[in-house]
Amino acid sequence: MRIAIDAMGGDRGSAVTVEGALLAAKEWNDVEIVLVGDESQIASHMPAGSKPGNVTVHHTADIIAADDEPVRAVRRKKDASMVVAGRMVKEGAAAAMISAGNTGALMATGLLIVGRIDGIERPALAPMLPTMDGSGVLALDLGANMDASADNLLQYAIMGSIFRNKVHGLAKPRVGLLNVGTEAAKGNELTKAAYPLLERAPIHFVGNVEARDLLHGSCDVLVCEGFAGNILLKAMEGTAGAVFSALKTEFTRSFMSKLAAAVLKPGLSAFKKKMDYSEHGAAPLLGINGLVLKSHGSSDANAIKNAVRQARIAIENRLVEAISTETSGKRDG
Amino acid sequence: MRIAIDAMGGDRGSAVTVEGALLAAKEWNDVEIVLVGDESQIASHMPAGSKPGNVTVHHTADIIAADDEPVRAVRRKKDASMVVAGRMVKEGAAAAMISAGNTGALMATGLLIVGRIDGIERPALAPMLPTMDGSGVLALDLGANMDASADNLLQYAIMGSIFRNKVHGLAKPRVGLLNVGTEAAKGNELTKAAYPLLERAPIHFVGNVEARDLLHGSCDVLVCEGFAGNILLKAMEGTAGAVFSALKTEFTRSFMSKLAAAVLKPGLSAFKKKMDYSEHGAAPLLGINGLVLKSHGSSDANAIKNAVRQARIAIENRLVEAISTETSGKRDG
Repeated sequence: MRIAIDAMGGDRGSAVTVEGALLAAKEWNDVEIVLVGDESQIASHMPAGSKPGNVTVHHTADIIAADDEPVRAVRRKKDASMVVAGRMVKEGAAAAMISAGNTGALMATGLLIVGRIDGIERPALAPMLPTMDGSGVLALDLGANMDASADNLLQYAIMGSIFRNKVHGLAKPRVGLLNVGTEAAKGNELTKAAYPLLERAPIHFVGNVEARDLLHGSCDVLVCEGFAGNILLKAMEGTAGAVFSALKTEFTRSFMSKLAAAVLKPGLSAFKKKMDYSEHGAAPLLGINGLVLKSHGSSDANAIKNAVRQARIAIENRLVEAISTETSGKRDG
Repeated sequence: MRIAIDAMGGDRGSAVTVEGALLAAKEWNDVEIVLVGDESQIASHMPAGSKPGNVTVHHTADIIAADDEPVRAVRRKKDASMVVAGRMVKEGAAAAMISAGNTGALMATGLLIVGRIDGIERPALAPMLPTMDGSGVLALDLGANMDASADNLLQYAIMGSIFRNKVHGLAKPRVGLLNVGTEAAKGNELTKAAYPLLERAPIHFVGNVEARDLLHGSCDVLVCEGFAGNILLKAMEGTAGAVFSALKTEFTRSFMSKLAAAVLKPGLSAFKKKMDYSEHGAAPLLGINGLVLKSHGSSDANAIKNAVRQARIAIENRLVEAISTETSGKRDG
């Protein structure tokens, strides 16, 4: 199976992306990796003779920058590494693409270059949010789409459930609806309209889920409208960040506190890592008629390798086909 | 000035409420406190001869319980302490009321017994959210109302701004709109409609505010639709709670970590207290044609005293009149 990796995305530059690709190529010899990007830059990260047989380079001259306006950049920069990788998926030259670049531009690449699955109105980016036990919850949508409809939420639920099943191997993923209370009648017009749709859907719907219970692992898939989802994500990030920064202040307050901190640090670092959602692998762009994975912007080589691992499982288990079948079933029924 | 206190609300029972009332009566002799509730129960918390001259008791036979259905309870329990306190405000027998009881029932008491300010469609409960520097941000609405309109948000902004000015003494409260990005064009249909209204309003509008910047004190008043506001509140509570519980686990892991924890605890406890939004005093029910304050359910005597302090300042500065004038000005203009 061939997997295209956008070598020019990510905040840490192409070196870590190439390093991750090499790690993956070494680990899985049934995978053929195509590094898409500037040929000479990519070559500079591969010591002479170190390129494995299952890695090739596809040269592109252009780059989509982190601050490029997404849709315009994707439309105009036809030879940007991200766009070319998308085209490879569209044309069947690659079974999946991975990028750690501009998130909005990757959404646009999915929509405009690869294209939606027939019947899916709004594809959704579905990252993992952290949970206390480290298992995480797949959440969609966290801000890519605004003003989603109840039907959109139903599609999110089905797509998220299939991903957790096919790629993460959960037999019966628990799907929860983000809401202001757990009772069925709670919420706004949107959640009240979505609730009965989710009840009837071919998923394991566990009902409404409150933001404060999420970290305790109350569901495996969290369905939410993008505005509320984005507030959730940023409130969690902001609060965790604030508490850890206050901790840091306490830890460095005096000689004694520095000693105390040294004792506690290993355990706290492990916990902090668990709370860092960038540790949870790549986020799939679900609803796209091809496999598109977003690696976190700050991905290191290991994160890139993990993204390849996910892509490989998704390809093997025919994720996109499964979503397409299930959602077209919904249309016919 | 006469302030009615619902002596039967709050999770900690009437003893702390009475204690708080006595503290307040002692501190401010221009205040006359009416304790509304069961006469004999209230008397049992006041040692014989300890009742100051500016405290009276108004006996009521009924109570609204924490799990009562709000609207029904307020309609049927006409002699409940909370409802009677509301009626005293309505009839001018008290200038303000304070309750630590059932939040929904207090909203219903405000709406059905005291009544709305003419022209205010949706009154809002406005608690303080914590910020890192301890100053806090007044947030409305955090879940009392679902599916607010842009006009509702405009009224929230004006009411919150007046409260921060009149009661907290901020000369020019910074009003922010909760959104998924800081650019003016960001957000959903609601925030896009509200943004220009807030720009033209007689407030110091500082634009869109992201959930992750809130804790850093990016505004003094946060305006949000109730669904998103509730998600924000519970995500912050849940995340802070999860991090502190993980800390506790680390602190008790070994003999050495217990020693280390002892060194760090004072500083961390101070921070934890700052992050606890129940520490930030009573939340006003804004948009009601009378002063109604909600003390946190877990309020201690000091919190009740602080609620009296706020009520006193609000009465002195004619808060309700100021809101009424400003919002009726909007209607005429």
